[in-house]
Amino acid sequence: MRFIHYTLLFVLIGLFSLALLKTDTQTSPKNIILVIGDGMGDNYLSAYRYWRAKSPDNVSPTIFDQLLVGKSMSYPDDDTFVTDSAAGATAYAAAQKTYNGAISVNHNGDKLTTLMELAKQHNKTTAIVATSEVVHATPATFFAHQGHRKEYPQIADQIVDNQINNKPIIDLILGGGISYLVREDRNLLNELKTFGYAIHTDWANLNQITSLPAIGVFADKGLAYEINSKQQRLEQMTQVALQQLTTDANSKKNGFFIMIEASQIDWCGHANDIACAMHEMDDLANTLSLLKQFVDDHPNTLMVVTADHETGGLSIGAEGQYNWLPDVIAGVNNSLDSIGDTLAQTNDENLYATWLTLTSIELEQPQILALNAAKNSGKNALIAFSRKQINNKSLTGWTSGGHTAADVPVLAYGAQSQLFYGFHDNIQIGQKLFELIQHTD
Amino acid sequence: MRFIHYTLLFVLIGLFSLALLKTDTQTSPKNIILVIGDGMGDNYLSAYRYWRAKSPDNVSPTIFDQLLVGKSMSYPDDDTFVTDSAAGATAYAAAQKTYNGAISVNHNGDKLTTLMELAKQHNKTTAIVATSEVVHATPATFFAHQGHRKEYPQIADQIVDNQINNKPIIDLILGGGISYLVREDRNLLNELKTFGYAIHTDWANLNQITSLPAIGVFADKGLAYEINSKQQRLEQMTQVALQQLTTDANSKKNGFFIMIEASQIDWCGHANDIACAMHEMDDLANTLSLLKQFVDDHPNTLMVVTADHETGGLSIGAEGQYNWLPDVIAGVNNSLDSIGDTLAQTNDENLYATWLTLTSIELEQPQILALNAAKNSGKNALIAFSRKQINNKSLTGWTSGGHTAADVPVLAYGAQSQLFYGFHDNIQIGQKLFELIQHTD
Repeated sequence: MRFIHYTLLFVLIGLFSLALLKTDTQTSPKNIILVIGDGMGDNYLSAYRYWRAKSPDNVSPTIFDQLLVGKSMSYPDDDTFVTDSAAGATAYAAAQKTYNGAISVNHNGDKLTTLMELAKQHNKTTAIVATSEVVHATPATFFAHQGHRKEYPQIADQIVDNQINNKPIIDLILGGGISYLVREDRNLLNELKTFGYAIHTDWANLNQITSLPAIGVFADKGLAYEINSKQQRLEQMTQVALQQLTTDANSKKNGFFIMIEASQIDWCGHANDIACAMHEMDDLANTLSLLKQFVDDHPNTLMVVTADHETGGLSIGAEGQYNWLPDVIAGVNNSLDSIGDTLAQTNDENLYATWLTLTSIELEQPQILALNAAKNSGKNALIAFSRKQINNKSLTGWTSGGHTAADVPVLAYGAQSQLFYGFHDNIQIGQKLFELIQHTD
Repeated sequence: MRFIHYTLLFVLIGLFSLALLKTDTQTSPKNIILVIGDGMGDNYLSAYRYWRAKSPDNVSPTIFDQLLVGKSMSYPDDDTFVTDSAAGATAYAAAQKTYNGAISVNHNGDKLTTLMELAKQHNKTTAIVATSEVVHATPATFFAHQGHRKEYPQIADQIVDNQINNKPIIDLILGGGISYLVREDRNLLNELKTFGYAIHTDWANLNQITSLPAIGVFADKGLAYEINSKQQRLEQMTQVALQQLTTDANSKKNGFFIMIEASQIDWCGHANDIACAMHEMDDLANTLSLLKQFVDDHPNTLMVVTADHETGGLSIGAEGQYNWLPDVIAGVNNSLDSIGDTLAQTNDENLYATWLTLTSIELEQPQILALNAAKNSGKNALIAFSRKQINNKSLTGWTSGGHTAADVPVLAYGAQSQLFYGFHDNIQIGQKLFELIQHTD
């Protein structure tokens, strides 16, 4: 009798543990979402948390914190430890290290198969969303093979010319870059139309994308900075993409691979523009919340979020001061570039009043004199003045206008997310995604 | 028949999964090792990896990378996001946030029970190893309760006066700080002797510590920088501690809690001295390898490694240059402070030759002139000159001589290490360790 009790107990435990094991060793996720925050080093995540909190007694974990699982090192196959976005993104897109500037090619010029190509070979629906021009280094590494990132026309051509089964490999493209697609020598938008793509170039019509394939490009180059446009454009585009990927017949059957880039965190970093960076992070945070909800609703989906490198050597606190003052940053509602434009166009009499309107930052008399002096030297001097004031008063530190070799965060959620725990070389992230797509079906 | 087969199968699966579940929910580890790298932000780990590699084609994961599982946010219960070491360490030692400067007390002055006290209440053997004076903020938070970290004599007194069962709570103390223990008003070393402690103050006799309780303090204040002494002193002290914790009868029976602090990473960071920081990291890396081996040999041990905060706003790469040059740093074999001392004592004629010997860095003529000018301004100017040259030539960036609000890495290994995966508020690390010690036995 006792034996039967034990047997029954073990049967129950066995069933329970089988259920557990099934969760653990399930097959590849049907859908894969890869999000890249360009330039998004760890300190951008910490800064965003505290910028959102405003005060130390109001801190709570962000969506980034909730999803954090590890980190990734980013050095390229080059004579430096510091990667650019091309080599940094190729490490994810093609799972191989290469030289700075390379778009999914190696030192020999060999084309490196990309995740997007592999996904299309496996009949998945494919999509790219970026706030930069879609031919910029990071998105380019997913659909193009080019010796140098600056060869934009050649990269753009591959949106049409890189085909599998006689069709372009990306089913949905959302971002900027009209000027690279509509040129004197080729009109790639018209060419895409012949392949059945719906074409949109007006942001107001974003929601009119109702079937695939489709392309929406909404600016000549990159989209406007989030801090200037306040459109939550990454979140908006991602929402449209998810809507299409949820309803498209092929996507429903075979799953999808989407690469979403928060492109302009990097640009704000290059400009050492902390307010600009925080707004880009905010757009990305809202995008991640949307994506997390999608994964919750579609459990057979993996979402991985990382960065290609850190930009700017950002630090929270500077110059020996044990503080960081996000309320200073909260008052700045324009990018440095836009502040420079506005100040340069103001007549001198109203200069300080304009500055105060743009930034909510009071100035002392010597700083007002410096502002007037900058006015006489032109827009770049006004930008430099504004950069210095905002960073000094908020105690934000930067060491560079370029990239650094800092490791970057890795976030993961959903099916097989446990594969991304702990420390990775950047190419290992790519390799794991390759394996998951290869073992799909 | 088929039913019996299934039943047998489930019995086997049940047994197997019970074994798995046992691993997963096993009781608290017998031994707990907590390692704190003071000031060790993420960039110190990346920098150490590349400093060790010297070249991008020679990179391999370090012991830090192997053990990385997550990160921790460090803001204090104060009017700033930037913590000092006292509040930062109290978050681990007592699992509560407090104000900057507080040694395991809260704003009301209440004493906050520490991990070391709890471990002793559970009859564990206890140990502290630090390269600073043992009364410095981080180690102090584990055995003392004091309104301000600078109240060194009062903190020192608690080494003897904070007792459980009429005995001091720390069974083994290794570090620096003789001048705080042997004072006109009290000789704490003599007092410890009356409690049966073996007393050692000579580094050469470190290995003569052959039983517990014992105290070894080897310098009036902190030990010498690793870059100057080249003693691998954290590794050496840790080896002695592990030896004692392995052989001590109580430790064998009831387990141990040890806190090991790589104290001087922070000091090198405050000095913006990258070579100094890399040697401290190297001593810590060797210490971690030793500890990992110990955990492998004693699987009922948990090891957690983290930092209290980041120091200096360190970045790898600076000033728009896409590179970092560890070979420049590899030639620097003295701390900036020591370089300043040596240069200040050299006669002017040999100044550049001495600089070259100390740093292996060639200078151009304008820099030699600047070096001579610094000589005339004294030691601090020579330090400032050297700091600038080494950081500029190696492309090392710093934003502060103080702390920043960067999140810090979390590493874990051994029994229950999975509890420390992902993102944590710093007090959650402390809380988890409290729970593990509370549920011990």
